[in-house]
Amino acid sequence: MKDKFLKDPTRPIRIEPGMSCDRLLEGLEGCSFQGRQLATAAKIWAEALDDDIIVWLGLAGAMVPAGMRRLVSTLIDEEFVDVIVSTGANLYHDYFETAGHFHHIGSTGVDDAELRDAKIDRIYDTYADEDIFFDIDRRIGKWASDNLEDRPYTTREFLKLLGDEAGRNSKGEQGILSTAAKKGVPVYCPAIGDSSIGIGLAEREKKFIFDVIGDVEETATLAAKKPSMVIYVGGGTPKNFIQQTEVTNIVNGRMLSGHKYAIQFVVDAPNWGGLSGCTFEEAVSWGKIAVDARMVSVLCDATIALPVAAAAVLTRREGKKRPGKHISEIVDW
Amino acid sequence: MKDKFLKDPTRPIRIEPGMSCDRLLEGLEGCSFQGRQLATAAKIWAEALDDDIIVWLGLAGAMVPAGMRRLVSTLIDEEFVDVIVSTGANLYHDYFETAGHFHHIGSTGVDDAELRDAKIDRIYDTYADEDIFFDIDRRIGKWASDNLEDRPYTTREFLKLLGDEAGRNSKGEQGILSTAAKKGVPVYCPAIGDSSIGIGLAEREKKFIFDVIGDVEETATLAAKKPSMVIYVGGGTPKNFIQQTEVTNIVNGRMLSGHKYAIQFVVDAPNWGGLSGCTFEEAVSWGKIAVDARMVSVLCDATIALPVAAAAVLTRREGKKRPGKHISEIVDW
Amino acid sequence: MKDKFLKDPTRPIRIEPGMSCDRLLEGLEGCSFQGRQLATAAKIWAEALDDDIIVWLGLAGAMVPAGMRRLVSTLIDEEFVDVIVSTGANLYHDYFETAGHFHHIGSTGVDDAELRDAKIDRIYDTYADEDIFFDIDRRIGKWASDNLEDRPYTTREFLKLLGDEAGRNSKGEQGILSTAAKKGVPVYCPAIGDSSIGIGLAEREKKFIFDVIGDVEETATLAAKKPSMVIYVGGGTPKNFIQQTEVTNIVNGRMLSGHKYAIQFVVDAPNWGGLSGCTFEEAVSWGKIAVDARMVSVLCDATIALPVAAAAVLTRREGKKRPGKHISEIVDW
Amino acid sequence: MKDKFLKDPTRPIRIEPGMSCDRLLEGLEGCSFQGRQLATAAKIWAEALDDDIIVWLGLAGAMVPAGMRRLVSTLIDEEFVDVIVSTGANLYHDYFETAGHFHHIGSTGVDDAELRDAKIDRIYDTYADEDIFFDIDRRIGKWASDNLEDRPYTTREFLKLLGDEAGRNSKGEQGILSTAAKKGVPVYCPAIGDSSIGIGLAEREKKFIFDVIGDVEETATLAAKKPSMVIYVGGGTPKNFIQQTEVTNIVNGRMLSGHKYAIQFVVDAPNWGGLSGCTFEEAVSWGKIAVDARMVSVLCDATIALPVAAAAVLTRREGKKRPGKHISEIVDW
Repeated sequence: MKDKFLKDPTRPIRIEPGMSCDRLLEGLEGCSFQGRQLATAAKIWAEALDDDIIVWLGLAGAMVPAGMRRLVSTLIDEEFVDVIVSTGANLYHDYFETAGHFHHIGSTGVDDAELRDAKIDRIYDTYADEDIFFDIDRRIGKWASDNLEDRPYTTREFLKLLGDEAGRNSKGEQGILSTAAKKGVPVYCPAIGDSSIGIGLAEREKKFIFDVIGDVEETATLAAKKPSMVIYVGGGTPKNFIQQTEVTNIVNGRMLSGHKYAIQFVVDAPNWGGLSGCTFEEAVSWGKIAVDARMVSVLCDATIALPVAAAAVLTRREGKKRPGKHISEIVDW
Repeated sequence: MKDKFLKDPTRPIRIEPGMSCDRLLEGLEGCSFQGRQLATAAKIWAEALDDDIIVWLGLAGAMVPAGMRRLVSTLIDEEFVDVIVSTGANLYHDYFETAGHFHHIGSTGVDDAELRDAKIDRIYDTYADEDIFFDIDRRIGKWASDNLEDRPYTTREFLKLLGDEAGRNSKGEQGILSTAAKKGVPVYCPAIGDSSIGIGLAEREKKFIFDVIGDVEETATLAAKKPSMVIYVGGGTPKNFIQQTEVTNIVNGRMLSGHKYAIQFVVDAPNWGGLSGCTFEEAVSWGKIAVDARMVSVLCDATIALPVAAAAVLTRREGKKRPGKHISEIVDW
Repeated sequence: MKDKFLKDPTRPIRIEPGMSCDRLLEGLEGCSFQGRQLATAAKIWAEALDDDIIVWLGLAGAMVPAGMRRLVSTLIDEEFVDVIVSTGANLYHDYFETAGHFHHIGSTGVDDAELRDAKIDRIYDTYADEDIFFDIDRRIGKWASDNLEDRPYTTREFLKLLGDEAGRNSKGEQGILSTAAKKGVPVYCPAIGDSSIGIGLAEREKKFIFDVIGDVEETATLAAKKPSMVIYVGGGTPKNFIQQTEVTNIVNGRMLSGHKYAIQFVVDAPNWGGLSGCTFEEAVSWGKIAVDARMVSVLCDATIALPVAAAAVLTRREGKKRPGKHISEIVDW
Repeated sequence: MKDKFLKDPTRPIRIEPGMSCDRLLEGLEGCSFQGRQLATAAKIWAEALDDDIIVWLGLAGAMVPAGMRRLVSTLIDEEFVDVIVSTGANLYHDYFETAGHFHHIGSTGVDDAELRDAKIDRIYDTYADEDIFFDIDRRIGKWASDNLEDRPYTTREFLKLLGDEAGRNSKGEQGILSTAAKKGVPVYCPAIGDSSIGIGLAEREKKFIFDVIGDVEETATLAAKKPSMVIYVGGGTPKNFIQQTEVTNIVNGRMLSGHKYAIQFVVDAPNWGGLSGCTFEEAVSWGKIAVDARMVSVLCDATIALPVAAAAVLTRREGKKRPGKHISEIVDW
């Protein structure tokens, strides 16, 4: 009776000088709690890339100000992700850095009234220059006025063009939008009005219209093309938006079969009932995640969990290619 | 030197039979930790209503499935809130209940594969019938097809009409959308595509276009009309969207003066750097909250904090009227 | 098939002027998330008092500096709890207030170096005078030197005598230790060295010896006398110590049957694997909690959850008496 | 005016194949949020070891069942820690593994009633055999009966002897207690009764007495010998007990100067007011941490944060020796 449960002894991790993130996670597979969850997430991610799937990345939280921009660009470049759904803020801050500007190391123990006087905007322990933000708002508004047609755009269309523009006129390092545009990775932003991109467009004279229901249609259609993996960095609209692709019922009038692989790096506990913190088990009840999916949640700040996992995946995928057709070959946008 | 800090002894709370929420919070004003924060939030809310302000309510998290629908309707009816910004899910689930359907008491310790078979969708410890969700999706899609004009709608326009429809054809109790429509309280939904309302509209044949940048313009213009109070139930897009009204720079090309009163009931800690959990102090650096605002954060599940605070505010405001013009008198929509 | 799950519709809470905590929790029974958990906790507590049980209260976290001292005294006076297991800090701060001293309303946004200069000790948003703490340390050390015999004392024996002394020489309001001493409620402190009581005793000349294994024996023996309810305010040693009474195997060499009723007000999530945040379900595997126990966890700061629940229990128990013999009649200390 | 704040641009992390934990943390120094905190913790730890200090490790949470036992043994062996203060559970589970027994990989989604029937005890996602726990309880009780003198022991004395016994009779790998005993690293356990060690001693016939106030005296005296670094893995009694060494006032009747270096890996937020989650800034007000200490808190599950940080420290300290006298040379136990 005990044998049913006591099959697999834990293997306490051994640390070594020069230990790689890959070895670290191998070691944590034999341990417990969130360490094992993180190890499992990297394992699922690296192995799922051998399957012919679409990998959806949901990107919430201030990941770009936090310094995750190059890492996400690498994920795109290495073809570890195929579609991105993001908050507007991450894309705006990405554009800001591609334009040659910087976020700065700051502190949480600062007098915010003094920052207000100096026109410095604080993001937890990170600062940025508000005056440059205003310039960037206006630049985006003007670029849209000068270049976009008088018709509704899905956020994917808009962000592709903005990514091209960012890449062409970059004075910094290439980033998420520009790399995604170059690599044919679609980027969606379900709440684009709710960001400085929205502010920039609201400030200009000419009316600009997004086709946000078009985003819903496009992503649901795309989700029907192949089985899928989801990677959620934080919750919010990106997580919900990717989850709902499986249940939108627009392809043949019925639901898809649920995401096949699912990992998330979140800091929300499920106990508050919100979508951001909800478990993948709960998502199974909705049909958003397949009943037999490989899935794991890692309760950890993404600025720790994501780099460790991504470094391990990068190591494990060296020299390996993804099977199947690239996403740009299966859509007709 | 000690006198500078030791001015105000704590007053340990005394509990009594029949104790009201109002008395409870009076007692907690003399205590510490989140209890004092909650007491302060109710105090700010009740007192701010004597000032001629616009009260913005941000509503994230699954508050309607959690049973907060009547309470929010009461807040609207009692004129404790003037504008609502919500996730799509809360509005969809509100429409579902107004149509005469129910969420059900459930459990977290359930086999989700079995729920999937039964087509029961789980929201933490709460269940609902997926087949009825599909009916409601289609009903919203059909209603929009049959009734809306072929032009972009702000989410406020759309949700006013949907609230009217919900109210007219209600087979349950009036709810958030229908009460807001009746009372002239505008409702915005910055990520409306990212919800079953979006799914319902995507499923129908006829193309439907939202004017989400119009929402940004409208709310920034509205915010310039009067000083403001913000009440955040959870974070997410509602919080960010209301915060950004002060910094949109479209009225005379400059920022407003920051929200004057600010309370939030959140479960996100600030330590992850995201907007959902960020402090109002951080928001001061951006100019979103006034330097001299009265503000407090309550780190507590809103299903506990909101009812306690709202019951106290209801008690304290009995027989009192709000000063100044109603919001419907200061806009020309 | 759906009927198995959809039996009990949620009943959204309705708030009313003057609403009592009791009514509030009745309303939350029909809602979801932590609100329902809190309502369930109060319900279990109030109903369990009709059963002939021993009620164990575990008290961790800085509950006395936070202003929960009178409330806990009321719980003792009203016979809502029968045995208390606490951190040393709570008992020390209780003694400090019984001696006529005060904690003070403070702020988290203070310069702690300045507090250091002023010899003000901060507990989150609460201050106290360090010089008085030193006096109290010495007073406890001297009292023990002058009054205690040269033999090991269980913490229960020691704290009974300290409670008597506190009550006799009180210059403030009677508190936890003095009320417990008067009412015959035993108080245990498994880590008594780890507190200012321990510091006070370490500072004196004369050696003082606690019999901490005696505490283990006594509590395990006591637990065997009657079925039990546990109430955990925070986790820490008090929770673990009460949990282990059921599995100590010293009565007839076998385990007891597990606590029969169990509620906890905690802020630790289970996901870190620690005892403080662990679920009662996990405790069932150990036999600490009975398989068929009534149990619920409330993830909420105790400075909110405890007063609301206690006020409701006080209301519901008005005029009711506990059945069975008082704990002082079933032990021979 | 902006220059005061905008001095140090963030440097987004770049991931590489084979990337070491050391390089990862170098990369995270230029990022934000908890990633930067973790990088800073490793940096402080590695650099502090060049200073002539005593390093105190506080060990709470179920770190041994979670697979951190070898890692902690390595920390002792490499002389990265000098004194350990632990919960009883960690030491008990360490002894259990040294005796040749195993914890097992388990799952949180299990029926705990079934585990109860099988006498399997669950620790979140980890299982162990209850019958072996009972054997170990009895073995510890018998060993103490047979070998210890009839006098009070500090927990340090007791755990040294238990570590020697564990090492001598090991059927598994050497662990925390046995390695500490061998290396002359004192181990304290302020709540030793509150653990299966306490249960084992309570179950035996012969009375056993701990001198827990002796622990307080010894550690306060030890803390006065050298400046100190503290490393807290979780909070609880270990954190509080180490913190209080600086304020015990028994050396020359006055407080020490506060710990000089301080890092913690915790999952408790400060907002609940408890000691486990409190900031080092708060501790400055008490004099527990020096005003000018190097200090950082990492809000992250220790099963992730500790291995990453420890691997980096191991890399950075390769071939380096600690300055000053070993702790065993400065005490006369």
